[in-house]
Amino acid sequence: MSLLQRFQQYISAHHLFSPKDTLLLAVSGGIDSVVLCELCKQSGYSFIIAHCNFKLRGAESERDAAFVQQLAQNYNVPLQVKEFDTEAYAGQHKLSIQEAARELRYEWFGELLGRETGVQKSEAVAPGSEHSTRHSPLATCLLTAHHLDDNIETMLMHFFRGTGIHGLRGMQPKQGSIVRPLLFARKQELKQFAAENNLTWVEDSSNALDKYSRNYFRHQLIPLVQNIYPEAENNLAANLRRFADMEQLYEQAVQQHKKKLLEQKGHEVHIPVLKLQKAEPLYTVVYEIIKAFGFSPAQTEEVIKLLGSESGRYVQSATHRIIKNRRWLIIAPAQSEQAQTLAIDEDESKVVFENGELAFEQLTGKNIQLVNDAAIALIDRTALQFPLLLRKWKKGDYFYPLGMKKKKKLARFFIDQKLSLTDKEKVWVLESNKKILWVVGLRIDDRFKLTEATKQVLKIQLVKVDKLTR
Amino acid sequence: MSLLQRFQQYISAHHLFSPKDTLLLAVSGGIDSVVLCELCKQSGYSFIIAHCNFKLRGAESERDAAFVQQLAQNYNVPLQVKEFDTEAYAGQHKLSIQEAARELRYEWFGELLGRETGVQKSEAVAPGSEHSTRHSPLATCLLTAHHLDDNIETMLMHFFRGTGIHGLRGMQPKQGSIVRPLLFARKQELKQFAAENNLTWVEDSSNALDKYSRNYFRHQLIPLVQNIYPEAENNLAANLRRFADMEQLYEQAVQQHKKKLLEQKGHEVHIPVLKLQKAEPLYTVVYEIIKAFGFSPAQTEEVIKLLGSESGRYVQSATHRIIKNRRWLIIAPAQSEQAQTLAIDEDESKVVFENGELAFEQLTGKNIQLVNDAAIALIDRTALQFPLLLRKWKKGDYFYPLGMKKKKKLARFFIDQKLSLTDKEKVWVLESNKKILWVVGLRIDDRFKLTEATKQVLKIQLVKVDKLTR
Repeated sequence: MSLLQRFQQYISAHHLFSPKDTLLLAVSGGIDSVVLCELCKQSGYSFIIAHCNFKLRGAESERDAAFVQQLAQNYNVPLQVKEFDTEAYAGQHKLSIQEAARELRYEWFGELLGRETGVQKSEAVAPGSEHSTRHSPLATCLLTAHHLDDNIETMLMHFFRGTGIHGLRGMQPKQGSIVRPLLFARKQELKQFAAENNLTWVEDSSNALDKYSRNYFRHQLIPLVQNIYPEAENNLAANLRRFADMEQLYEQAVQQHKKKLLEQKGHEVHIPVLKLQKAEPLYTVVYEIIKAFGFSPAQTEEVIKLLGSESGRYVQSATHRIIKNRRWLIIAPAQSEQAQTLAIDEDESKVVFENGELAFEQLTGKNIQLVNDAAIALIDRTALQFPLLLRKWKKGDYFYPLGMKKKKKLARFFIDQKLSLTDKEKVWVLESNKKILWVVGLRIDDRFKLTEATKQVLKIQLVKVDKLTR
Repeated sequence: MSLLQRFQQYISAHHLFSPKDTLLLAVSGGIDSVVLCELCKQSGYSFIIAHCNFKLRGAESERDAAFVQQLAQNYNVPLQVKEFDTEAYAGQHKLSIQEAARELRYEWFGELLGRETGVQKSEAVAPGSEHSTRHSPLATCLLTAHHLDDNIETMLMHFFRGTGIHGLRGMQPKQGSIVRPLLFARKQELKQFAAENNLTWVEDSSNALDKYSRNYFRHQLIPLVQNIYPEAENNLAANLRRFADMEQLYEQAVQQHKKKLLEQKGHEVHIPVLKLQKAEPLYTVVYEIIKAFGFSPAQTEEVIKLLGSESGRYVQSATHRIIKNRRWLIIAPAQSEQAQTLAIDEDESKVVFENGELAFEQLTGKNIQLVNDAAIALIDRTALQFPLLLRKWKKGDYFYPLGMKKKKKLARFFIDQKLSLTDKEKVWVLESNKKILWVVGLRIDDRFKLTEATKQVLKIQLVKVDKLTR
């Protein structure tokens, strides 16, 4: 089958775009993008050419821009050109030249596709380029000329930098509105097509250098491997196909685990600890769950440790908190009230919260010594309903301060206690069946105090965070 | 944590063996296996040393054997030594020296572990080595000194030779009775341990050469990559951990697909075509299903083509046949009778079998031309019950030959027809509700012939395999 036929077959097999779409072609003027233009022309697709002038190679950059202008004229298609001060941008943003060029390129392409990028300014139209409406997209998708050899190099780079399945399978033929319809083709096939069709193109002199790692792999590493495995490139191409399938199966298994483990409750996700502990492979299942909430791979071990730790311990990302709460891990937006409410079961002996730890101890009526220590609460066990809730106080909270028959708003109580604004903000309460039993570290509630009739006592001791030796 | 502690932790975390087991240690005398001995000694494990003398390096081979003998004496543990004529074996079996050494080594280890290898002869005891009972295993598992750097090289070799997930994740810490308790450790750590414990060892001069691809990767490829990614080795080590998890998830998804798709029926596996066609990713799901039946990756595309082809087409491995049979793919032992029975639905127009094709056509009573052609059967449609079955004739089969009122055994009929033995072996029959309606290509059954009352006719035409243009 000819390259043209395979090109069209690949596009339809992967549903890359429909022949009616208007395509934006990223054209450097090099052989790959020149072949892409010709294939689109021969297929009868309507397209627009976009050329980035990164101004990195002096006169050669201008030669390339002129060449692409001529190419667009020959094909009689619209042209978009944009000039970038790539070195300045790289300097400003502390990026490598390659990274800078990549960012600039895709930001501009995004604008041309009418995507919201936040910076849709008029300087996006380069001097000399055709003007167009900035408000409606020029095209529905962007075509790049990446081919199979590029993808092999991408896979190799990911492989040696360390990667999971997503890096192994390299670039995909379709990613959002970016389409890579030449990913099936070897570089050699593009060369042959160019020769057969008498195409001309420009050579990028930097491709011959090894200063960029992609070229280093192309010119140094692959030939070295071919000394012992002559078929290495074909083997790697076959790997890419297998790895794409592998990724799909991997994702299916991950989704299966998530379905079994995650319970969405409002803005929170609840995970039963016992079930999660049995998940295999634990490390990767945990990472696949938490990564969507801004957690890094390095935090995976911390989250696994949470499984065995006291209620109240948590691991935090920029946006979320994963809290151990009795037999659950709860993933909650970091600032939510829910993230700050802990349930405490009857059999728990210790709970951790931002002010320190609460230690719980059951005593029988006989060996009670009343103590005059605000950090210790002695509570009539029979008055309690579990689970208890530990939470920050909020406006409208009230309780019956020990020794008083009338209820009092907490806000009022804090004024009486002469609490500073910062101290007030740090107050937590412990409640049972919606009644506050202890304003933690300050005063217990009269309804829960010990009486003559008390048989069982719950002793709760606050160990403040600055007293903890960890 | 010290290397010794990590060694013991790795063994218990991966349930490699219990401290009560007697271990067989594969010891070359090189630094890796010497460190393994010392770690086992310091851990208090009881072990036996096994040494292979491949006789590939002349005096150096003898030096190594003597060194290992001394090592066993120093540790006061039993020693097993075996000498191999590796070059002769490689020549005989057309193997590379490395492959030959590997086969010889693992065959002998298998004997020492009491595994059935088929060749438990007395020459397994090398001259000079201690005698032992050949009938009961010396040890419960074999320990090799493969470490993390070895595993990185293994992964790289698989990667460049082309691999699926199983090759990517490298060697596993436990594989049957082979245990690799140093897979967690970097070579550098073993060197440090050897220095700290004043260990001595022998150097294998062939390790310094690049004639084996493993060494080529170690000495040429990895340093080249480190020029641009200095952390490459650590990244690859991290890859190995991730890939092992990846493989587990991959296997889970594959099992899920198999559970949904495969129906075991006696010795056959039945797969509904419609369901399989919807499976994603189709290629890999199909390959994972068929590989257990001796099919090669290259046959995957053929099996996928079966999904859209006529009943009766099949793909064959050394042991099995995958047959398209109406809406099913049937995987059956190649020689089974079932593998040779095809069901034919009412709406099918063509069926393929070993003698050629049967084409089915419905005719109305009006346009019938009786023909005198044994390759065409005209059958009274109303006498039929679908599905029809197409199968080889078997002993005991009988039918009512057209024009006869009495039934006749097929064996008898063949004698009357003067069929040769080979012709007889090739006869197939078509049956409806356990009655033979056509001895294919020879004679129809009288019970199914056209009569005055016939309204609907089924015309079946045999196109012999040598007349088919494919």
